[in-house]
Amino acid sequence: MTDNLTRDAFLGGRVQLYQPRVGYRAGVDPVLLAASVAATPGQSVLDLGCGVGAAILCLSARVPGLSLTGVEVQEDYAMLARRNAGDRVEVITADISDLPLDLRQRQFDHVLTNPPYFNRAASRAAFDAGREAAHGESAPLAEWVRVAAKRLKPKGYAHIIHRAERLPEILGAWPGGMGSIEVLPLSARAGRMAERVIVRARKNGRGAFKLHAPLVLHLGACHTRDAEDYCPQVKAVLRDGAALEF
Amino acid sequence: MTDNLTRDAFLGGRVQLYQPRVGYRAGVDPVLLAASVAATPGQSVLDLGCGVGAAILCLSARVPGLSLTGVEVQEDYAMLARRNAGDRVEVITADISDLPLDLRQRQFDHVLTNPPYFNRAASRAAFDAGREAAHGESAPLAEWVRVAAKRLKPKGYAHIIHRAERLPEILGAWPGGMGSIEVLPLSARAGRMAERVIVRARKNGRGAFKLHAPLVLHLGACHTRDAEDYCPQVKAVLRDGAALEF
Repeated sequence: MTDNLTRDAFLGGRVQLYQPRVGYRAGVDPVLLAASVAATPGQSVLDLGCGVGAAILCLSARVPGLSLTGVEVQEDYAMLARRNAGDRVEVITADISDLPLDLRQRQFDHVLTNPPYFNRAASRAAFDAGREAAHGESAPLAEWVRVAAKRLKPKGYAHIIHRAERLPEILGAWPGGMGSIEVLPLSARAGRMAERVIVRARKNGRGAFKLHAPLVLHLGACHTRDAEDYCPQVKAVLRDGAALEF
Repeated sequence: MTDNLTRDAFLGGRVQLYQPRVGYRAGVDPVLLAASVAATPGQSVLDLGCGVGAAILCLSARVPGLSLTGVEVQEDYAMLARRNAGDRVEVITADISDLPLDLRQRQFDHVLTNPPYFNRAASRAAFDAGREAAHGESAPLAEWVRVAAKRLKPKGYAHIIHRAERLPEILGAWPGGMGSIEVLPLSARAGRMAERVIVRARKNGRGAFKLHAPLVLHLGACHTRDAEDYCPQVKAVLRDGAALEF
């Protein structure tokens, strides 16, 4: 299987991940997601749809002493997550809509999720089956949101990253009792429409909804060279493992 | 009554409005709302909660040959709207939740609305009764959204401006059949959280949801002088009557 894998560095090498050469491959989204979670040592964290473990291992690298659990429906990705995480993460092979009883009886201080991005009904199936399952939607997006909320302790925080065009569905899917909702738009360049959003919500939160200023990923108005051109704040997150505060 | 009124210039003097000296007074919000409506000559426009006519008269000043209707529940504001508009606007005194039959049988190319901003349950009553009715909520916000949608022709556009913290309610209130929803966040300064949002939706629209880059109102990182410090694009809208394209 090793020939079908690559080993990739995240957070400037602090995190090394085996990933399938073909299929769903972690990019900057799980890294930004992990950076937005203000977890503190000793807390428990659940990653719904953890893939090979990119988000949860980036979080683990920034915040020591967390109790980490990942759920992944595809066994080959779950196996890679176990290989990448060693004993740092409990990886459970399960569909998020049909979690094992043990997990349905547990609640977490933080739940994070980077659900599949493409609506099967509205997009062509990806060529590769693994990529298909990771990008296509098994459970509807609203189900990911509801399950995330359900697995939170009182006062716990959920974080979700998704395509900006799905924001209304995400905002509409939080069950009663979730509040203090905040949106961080992510845009490729200054002045551009948001491509992604990170949405934060708190169980029993009572704060007003907040729409933050966008996090602009790249410097300049357009892509002018092949070299990396991340904005300093983004570079600090992606290369130095900094938190993304908002 | 004249002693209780001021006459104020909008769009660099193109629009002159009598307003009550005390109570709800139009600011930049109705001007930005009107600027965001891409109406063309000959189209029909309905303003729900038109107040003294600020939004609809700003739109009238930018786009000639529109057929304009305003609804205002408070008779004294409706009378001022008639005085301000002359024969340019049909002003109807009515509650938006209880529109006269004639109006319920008509549909418009554009509906715009700047509903009351404060949730009565969550805020203290304003001192002045007129301000109270304009700022407090008679109909719930979701009702403004639904009525706006209902009064649109197929392919017609609704525009609403409101506090950013009410965005989830607005997005959740559009009835089925409304689509191509777009959000323009308005923030006071670069990098600040959005204070207002303009939400556009289209009847029978099928476009994906869009979260635009914020419109930043003021130059600089903070208020440093009393002089006006609007960003050039905003100045063009407020002083020169330009459209706000997004």
